[in-house]
This record gives sequence, C-alpha cells and structure tokens, in this order.
Amino acid sequence: MDTSNWGKNIILGENITIGENVRIGHNCIIEDNVVIGNDTFIDSGTTIRSFTSIGAQSNIGSNCIIGEYLMDFYMDHEKHKHELIIGEKALIRSGSVIYAGSTIGDNFQTGHHVTIREKAEIGNDVSVGTLCDIEGSCKIGNYVRMQCNVLIGQLSVIDDFVWLFPNVILTNDPTPPSKHFVGVHVHSFATVAAGAIIMPGMDLEHDCLIGAGAVVTKPVEPYAVAVGSPARVISDVRNVRNKVTGELVYPWREHFDRYMPWDGMGFDAWYASLDLEERSKYTLADIVG
Amino acid sequence: MDTSNWGKNIILGENITIGENVRIGHNCIIEDNVVIGNDTFIDSGTTIRSFTSIGAQSNIGSNCIIGEYLMDFYMDHEKHKHELIIGEKALIRSGSVIYAGSTIGDNFQTGHHVTIREKAEIGNDVSVGTLCDIEGSCKIGNYVRMQCNVLIGQLSVIDDFVWLFPNVILTNDPTPPSKHFVGVHVHSFATVAAGAIIMPGMDLEHDCLIGAGAVVTKPVEPYAVAVGSPARVISDVRNVRNKVTGELVYPWREHFDRYMPWDGMGFDAWYASLDLEERSKYTLADIVG
Amino acid sequence: MDTSNWGKNIILGENITIGENVRIGHNCIIEDNVVIGNDTFIDSGTTIRSFTSIGAQSNIGSNCIIGEYLMDFYMDHEKHKHELIIGEKALIRSGSVIYAGSTIGDNFQTGHHVTIREKAEIGNDVSVGTLCDIEGSCKIGNYVRMQCNVLIGQLSVIDDFVWLFPNVILTNDPTPPSKHFVGVHVHSFATVAAGAIIMPGMDLEHDCLIGAGAVVTKPVEPYAVAVGSPARVISDVRNVRNKVTGELVYPWREHFDRYMPWDGMGFDAWYASLDLEERSKYTLADIVG
Repeated sequence: MDTSNWGKNIILGENITIGENVRIGHNCIIEDNVVIGNDTFIDSGTTIRSFTSIGAQSNIGSNCIIGEYLMDFYMDHEKHKHELIIGEKALIRSGSVIYAGSTIGDNFQTGHHVTIREKAEIGNDVSVGTLCDIEGSCKIGNYVRMQCNVLIGQLSVIDDFVWLFPNVILTNDPTPPSKHFVGVHVHSFATVAAGAIIMPGMDLEHDCLIGAGAVVTKPVEPYAVAVGSPARVISDVRNVRNKVTGELVYPWREHFDRYMPWDGMGFDAWYASLDLEERSKYTLADIVG
Repeated sequence: MDTSNWGKNIILGENITIGENVRIGHNCIIEDNVVIGNDTFIDSGTTIRSFTSIGAQSNIGSNCIIGEYLMDFYMDHEKHKHELIIGEKALIRSGSVIYAGSTIGDNFQTGHHVTIREKAEIGNDVSVGTLCDIEGSCKIGNYVRMQCNVLIGQLSVIDDFVWLFPNVILTNDPTPPSKHFVGVHVHSFATVAAGAIIMPGMDLEHDCLIGAGAVVTKPVEPYAVAVGSPARVISDVRNVRNKVTGELVYPWREHFDRYMPWDGMGFDAWYASLDLEERSKYTLADIVG
Repeated sequence: MDTSNWGKNIILGENITIGENVRIGHNCIIEDNVVIGNDTFIDSGTTIRSFTSIGAQSNIGSNCIIGEYLMDFYMDHEKHKHELIIGEKALIRSGSVIYAGSTIGDNFQTGHHVTIREKAEIGNDVSVGTLCDIEGSCKIGNYVRMQCNVLIGQLSVIDDFVWLFPNVILTNDPTPPSKHFVGVHVHSFATVAAGAIIMPGMDLEHDCLIGAGAVVTKPVEPYAVAVGSPARVISDVRNVRNKVTGELVYPWREHFDRYMPWDGMGFDAWYASLDLEERSKYTLADIVG
C-alpha cells in the first residue's frame, strides 16, 4: 500500500484492501475486511467498520461512521458481520452515520449528520440532505433528491426522480404504537414540499405535487396538487405557472434538467433514447405508455 | 485496571474508577473523577467529562460527549463540577451529547446525534430517537419512547409510558419571546403522532391520541383523539380500529406489549400484580381507580 | 507559541498565527493559514481548516469542523482557498460544521450539530440553536435568535432582532424543483413561532407574530398576528395579552430585554440614545419615524 498520503495515528485492522492513490486523514480507524477503491479520500477522524466496501473516486468527510453496528453487536460484539456496499464517486459529508447491512449505488451524496440505518436499498445518483434520517428497511430508487431533515420511515418505497423537500416525514404506523407498519409509496417524479407529513400506506402517484405543510391522509392521483391539513386536491400540476414569468412549470421533468440524465437534451428525447432494459431500470413504466 | 481491551491514544484524567472488563476505544478522553461500571464499552473518539458516572453493562457509541459543559464553564473553566449519573445497561449511540447536571435511569437508549441538556430528570427504560433535543429542566418518567427529532422544551413533564413520534414539539413560551415559560404535561399512555406541536402549558391527559401534524391549543381529555390545526377532538380512542383487521386498538396498553413490562402477560394482569409502592412509581394513579 | 495549555496529538499546518493564552485540546487539527485570537479555547477533536480566522476570547467545542470545504474541494483538492472570518467571543458548541466562505460577527453562539454553509453573512450577537441548518447565500442581521432545528434557505434575508423558534423553515423555491429561488425577508422584531413554514419570497414585516405551525403564503403586515394553514391574520400584536397576568406583551421589544442592548434601560431610551450611524446599523429605519 502506498501510504504517502496518509495522516497520523491511523489505526488499521486486518485483511484490508486499499486501492491506488487513496488518501486517509489523521486519526482514522479502518477496521477489518474493508475494501476502498482507487482515488478515494477518507477525511480525518472517520471510522470505517468491518465488511464495508467503498467505491473508487469517493470522498468521505470527517468524523463519519461508515458501516455502523446493528443492534446485534450490542448483544454480542462478535456478531458484527454485516456488509455495507457503497458505489463509486460517493460524497458523504462530515458527521454522517451509515449502518452496515445496506447497499448504496454510484454518485451518492449526503449532507452532514445524516443517519442511514440497515436494510436500506438505495439506487444511483441519490442525494440526501443534512440531518436526514433514513430508518432502514426501505427502497429508494435512482435520482432521488432529499433536502435537509427528511425522515424516511421503515417500509417506505421511493421510485426514481422523486423530490422530498426539508422536514418531510414518511410515516409508517397507522395506529401508533403498533407492530403493523405500512410504508408510504412515492412514485416517480412526485414532489413533496417542505414540512409535509405523509400518512402510512399512502401512494403518492407519479408527477403529483404535495404542498408545504400538507398532511396527506388519502392517496394522491397522478399530476394532482394536494395541499392543506388534511390535504385536499386543489389543482392539476399541468395548470401551475411560475408567478413571475407566467410559464407552465410542471411536470417538472419537462422544465428542469439540472443533474438529470436528460440535461441538455430534454426529457422526451432522453426517454425516447432509452432501450427497454434501461427504461425498466428507471421504473417509468407507470408514466409512459 | 485491566487495560488489555483498551485502544490507542487514550487520555486519562485523575481519580478515575473503572470496573472490570471495561473496553475503551481509540482516542477516547476520560476526564477526572469519572466512574465507569463493569462490562461497559466506550467506543472510539468519545469524551467522558468530569464527574460523570456510567452504570455497568452500558454501551457508549463513538464521538459522544458525556457530561458536557454547562454555560458556567465558559465563564470560568474551573467551575465545571456538575454531576451526570447514567444508570446500568445504557445504549447511547454515536454523536450524542449529554450534559452534566442530569440524572438518567437504567436501560436508557438513544439514537445518533441526540442532545440532552442539564437538569433533565429521566426515569428507567426510556428511549430517545436520533436527533432528539431535550432542552433540560424537565422531568421524563419511565418507559417513555421518543422517535427521531423530538423537541422537549424546558419545564416539560412527561409521565410514564408516553409515546412521542417524529418531529413532535413540546413548546413552553406562550408569548414568545418572554421569560414566563409554562411547560407541557403529557400524562401516562398518551400518544402524540408525527409532527404535532403542543402549545405551552397544555395537559395531554392519559390515553389520549394526538394526530399527525396537529397544533394543540387546548388541553386534551383522557382517551380523546385530537387532530388538525388548531386541534379538535374528533373521537374517543376506544372507538379507533385497525383499518385492515377491524380490531379495536386503543388504549394501546391493552393491545401492545413490545418492550413493556407486561410483555406476555397483558397490561391488566401486570398492573394487578404491582404493589402500592410499585404502582406509585409508575404514576398510574390517574388512570386506574 | 506558548503550548503549555495544549493537549496531545495536535496536528499543525503551516503559517499559523496563534494568540496568547490559547488552549487547544487533544487530537485537534489546525490546518494552514489559520489565525486564532488571544484567550481562545479549541476543544478536543476539532478541525480548523485553512484560511479560517477566529477572534479572541472564543470557545470552540469538541468535534467541530470550522472552515469546512466547499464543493470545489471535491473537484480539486488544491482549490480550497476560501476564507472564514469569525468575530470575538464566539461560543460554538460541539459537533458544529461551519463552511469557509462566510463571515460571522462578534458574540456568535451556537448549539450542537449546527451546519452553516458558504456565503452566509451573519451580524453580531446572533444565536443559532442546536441542529439549525443555515444553507448559505443569505444575510442575517444583529441580535437574531434561532432556537433549535431552524432551516434558513438560500437567499433569505433576516433583519435585526428577529426570533425564529424551533423547526421554523424559510423556503425559497416557489415551484419545486426549479432554479428560480426567491428568498424570504424577515424584518426587524418579527417573531416566528415553532414549526411555521414561510413560503418563498414572503415579507414578514416588522413586529409581526407568526403562530406555531402556520404556513405563510401571503406577506404579513407590521404588527399582524398570522396563524393557521394557510395563515390568516387574526389580530394585532398590540392586542395580545399574557393569559396569566393580563398584561399587554407586544411589541416584545417594549417588554423583554434579556441579552438585548436595551437591557435595564428600556427599548425607547436605548433607541433614543443611538446616533444615526448606529441606527442605520440596526436597520430599524422601517419601524421608527
């Protein structure tokens, strides 16, 4: 291993595989059976726990814990043998805690102090804001964007190209407290504005828009605009205009392309360019004939 | 002291009492006058400040600060002489900050990045989710469960067996900003669903249920179901059914026993088995003849 | 440099200027081109990144990152050359992350796990509670108080003497997702109670009061009390009384002086004592003839 770019006081376990041109900061702890890809940077004070694999060209900020213990560790310290797989080009900011037992795709980004628990299955190009809490046992598609402080309850299913704005809560217990959890399902291209609370088991269908502070107690149809507490449908997104320019702005995929795979070419041309396998990857079947 | 299970670069103060079979991770700082019980595990990067006592069989995660300074420290660094007492079998997850000047019972559990300030009096079997902020000068009973991001304002009183779901806020200032705080009182077996805001001085009586996103501006009677903003009573919990099975599900203590002391025997049998002293410990006087 | 008060394992970069009587804790990292004023205390495990300047008599808690990298760092590690200026007498609590590229005045205080991003321009005597997230590209005046978990979206403008209570959100995207952000403007002496959500571009005029859980979709006039979702004006603050004492309590500046510059003398006398330059500093022009 080329340790010329390593800091001081690094503590290394056994059976570690570290790629070329990896930089590791001061006081880091790399436990046993860790794999780190080429050109990756682990900043100071971070712990990478056993059985974690981090893809090439990733950046892991300071004071993170990657591959955190599950509950079984506290029962028996020898039992911590869960894998965590993180894809290439991750950017995980400082203070974040990601549990073992999850899988995360490429181009993953987080803010600070994020928590992601076990059994989360996260696609590619997902971004998770500062203070988000993903409670695990959930499925998150590709190109999903969460702003800060979003809470994803267990059993949530989030399809591709979903936007969740600050302090959104996806709940899961219809009669709290109980053992009978029912997850929320947010379909492709849905947008949930700041502070909305989605009740257990709700479907938010494709291209719908949930207003800030809404409490959603009924399923929401495709393209519907639902606002208030309890939320009521007041419009169709295709009637919503930018107040300054007067332009129609939804479905947003027709009007917004920043960091999206149709950047520069437009959604329709991009979608037309996909073959069947790619289309199935993006779970767009529900929106396009 | 048996230091065979200790990591590297540990910094120890004076007058420290450490039990048998204690494991301490790398880069930990244990300040003066600390007591750590047998079989306890302090993970890497954690600081235990002066005058902290941690019970046996506890687990303290990485990068925690246990016994954090009060404001007087910043005025005069010599003044930090407040005690923190944490009971046995605590499980405090990484990144949490617990101030000196509080007392916490046995079987305490937290998520990550929790903050608990001074003068919090916390009972046994309490669980506090990720990102919760307990602002101190408050009293929390036994078997209280908070999910993530709950805010407990100063002067709050929470009786036993209370459930607070994500992002609940217990406020305390009727005419902000002012110096005239009035705490919320949540009585035994009350349940507050996600995102509810409770106004200063409100009593949430035993076995009531506050709906998600409610803003509670009036006291809530026993067994009442209150929803909306401002919250209105719409039902009695004893009429609420599980939508799938059709079963009555409240009061929840008759239908839910996970981690509860009546697990496997039922609430009524458990309560009948208590002697008077035990009953008084659980402050159930308000609910049972 | 007098290092008699320094801890162990401190890592120092080049071209560092450290004042007299500075105390630095264990495992701290002080990167290149850092300036630290006299009598300042940096607690253990904290990283001060390049081009950060911290004023005299400040306290920086454990495990902070002060001068955090901007996005350009992840593109090219050599590009991290943004300045962060923090004034005198700061008290920044543990776990906080403050980005490079911002300026912060004197007497700044934070709770724990705060995040402040780049291009934030923050005045004197500002207090930011635990878990607040200031997203940068914003302007915050003097004597602004945020309680915990407040989110300040980009392009927000907050004048002097504003109070934001827990979980308040200042949003900025009228048609999410878009690139057309419009910030909220909160004028002097406005108070926003817990959990309120302010829609993009709204003006909250001087001395207004926004109720807990309100969703503000229209501008709010001076002295107006706005509550509910969507918020409606229900009163004038000058009619609001303390429920116990019956006293009128607003505008709060006439009735509350804790930590305010008029402490002990009253607002009117204080304001009368200001010269024109001082008055302009406090942007009170909008409230006083």
